[in-house]
Amino acid sequence: MGTIKKITIIGAGCLGKALVRQLHIKGFQIHEIVSRKKEEVESLCQLTGATANFGDYDSVLPDADLYIVSVKDDAVFEIRKKLKIKDKLVVHTSGTLPFDALKKCSSQFGIFYPLQTFSKNRMPDFEEIPFFVWASSSASLLDLYDVAAALSKKVFTAKEDKLKTIHLAAVFASNFTNHLLKISKDILEENEIDFQILKPLVEETFKKAFELSPEDAQTGPAKRGDCTTTDKHKSMLKRDDWRALYVLFSGMIREEYADKKKD
Amino acid sequence: MGTIKKITIIGAGCLGKALVRQLHIKGFQIHEIVSRKKEEVESLCQLTGATANFGDYDSVLPDADLYIVSVKDDAVFEIRKKLKIKDKLVVHTSGTLPFDALKKCSSQFGIFYPLQTFSKNRMPDFEEIPFFVWASSSASLLDLYDVAAALSKKVFTAKEDKLKTIHLAAVFASNFTNHLLKISKDILEENEIDFQILKPLVEETFKKAFELSPEDAQTGPAKRGDCTTTDKHKSMLKRDDWRALYVLFSGMIREEYADKKKD
Repeated sequence: MGTIKKITIIGAGCLGKALVRQLHIKGFQIHEIVSRKKEEVESLCQLTGATANFGDYDSVLPDADLYIVSVKDDAVFEIRKKLKIKDKLVVHTSGTLPFDALKKCSSQFGIFYPLQTFSKNRMPDFEEIPFFVWASSSASLLDLYDVAAALSKKVFTAKEDKLKTIHLAAVFASNFTNHLLKISKDILEENEIDFQILKPLVEETFKKAFELSPEDAQTGPAKRGDCTTTDKHKSMLKRDDWRALYVLFSGMIREEYADKKKD
Repeated sequence: MGTIKKITIIGAGCLGKALVRQLHIKGFQIHEIVSRKKEEVESLCQLTGATANFGDYDSVLPDADLYIVSVKDDAVFEIRKKLKIKDKLVVHTSGTLPFDALKKCSSQFGIFYPLQTFSKNRMPDFEEIPFFVWASSSASLLDLYDVAAALSKKVFTAKEDKLKTIHLAAVFASNFTNHLLKISKDILEENEIDFQILKPLVEETFKKAFELSPEDAQTGPAKRGDCTTTDKHKSMLKRDDWRALYVLFSGMIREEYADKKKD
């Protein structure tokens, strides 16, 4: 283990809770947990022996080696006005905020960004999560790198622009794909068909995309230029926004692979 | 095994090839393989001992128990003019064609639809693939059911309307999700970042959608109503169609979860 031993976690949402548990498992001392969510904080403190703080940023203990702020982006702006920890390393966990969003809190600041989606009552396999770190000094960056490397096998250093690109790609690959599954589920359930029948198809779709490539894995009526089917599908969709999405995707896919044939 | 023993496969695309291999493994006799793809047919006939037929529908052998037509939808219309097999059971494998698309070929016809995406050089786990079957008589339906049940643990009977709904949902859940991954890959590679870093995120996204539900699994800036981030993302996207897709998804997600909060 590197120079960082005592860690304070600010924010007890899905990510904050997962970090507390995983850092605790990996032998770090959770020093203090700060959040207005009283119950969450109490149970996490019981688990780890950390001090509980119900959102009083003025009295945050000054003697942790690292402060990890895992709250919503808007709340980060609030926290940076209140939190003062001199020269202690403070990092945020957002893929979109500027690298120096916490500059006002300390002379040592940075980013500690796990590329993963966190939800209640789920613990993803931390070892496989890519962690992206960056800091205001090379000493801090090395310290952060060590903490991330204790959690995951995949740690990268990444400046702000790279992180923003990754976050944007992740929105398409995770948030939007999930919404497509929501639409599929609604289409099926309107007709009293169980959503779970799609599971093998979806699993194979994603395996294929990463084992071949999304280009080589593409199938379906739009790729084949099968307008009879795409027209039928359009007429089956009753919601305007679903139809708009269907038309946009079908057009993009048709164009993408029609061009390929011409090459 | 039921009454069907000898099977003729018409079409040697990704699905046709997979069916030949899997039916052969399960002990069915592959009687004849019909396709203009000479090399494919020859190697499959060598594997299974089937008779090769390079697209001459007039001379298709009349004595198979089941004829599976696994060609593109347009080609099915061509085949139904040429293929004449009296009272032998003939089925197509399309989720979109009418149930009676092959009525002209025989008095016994039906659908044999595997809900899966098939690509070259990939063999999905057949046992997990949902198969949907339907036929012109209950005797034929039972026969078809037995063949499907030899391949998969998940066989359902399904009339035309149900199949069309399932196929539409599958286009959203598989074809469109795959295209989102294509866009993610392009965004990353433009910036020299390896697409594979998204794999753990995407895996977790899809596990979550089926273990929780897509609603409970949704995360991201649009759900949080974080317009600062969604505006930044829009400005980062250079292609009009990607931006249109981003705006459409973000609007739908924002609305979906804003409404939920009001409830």
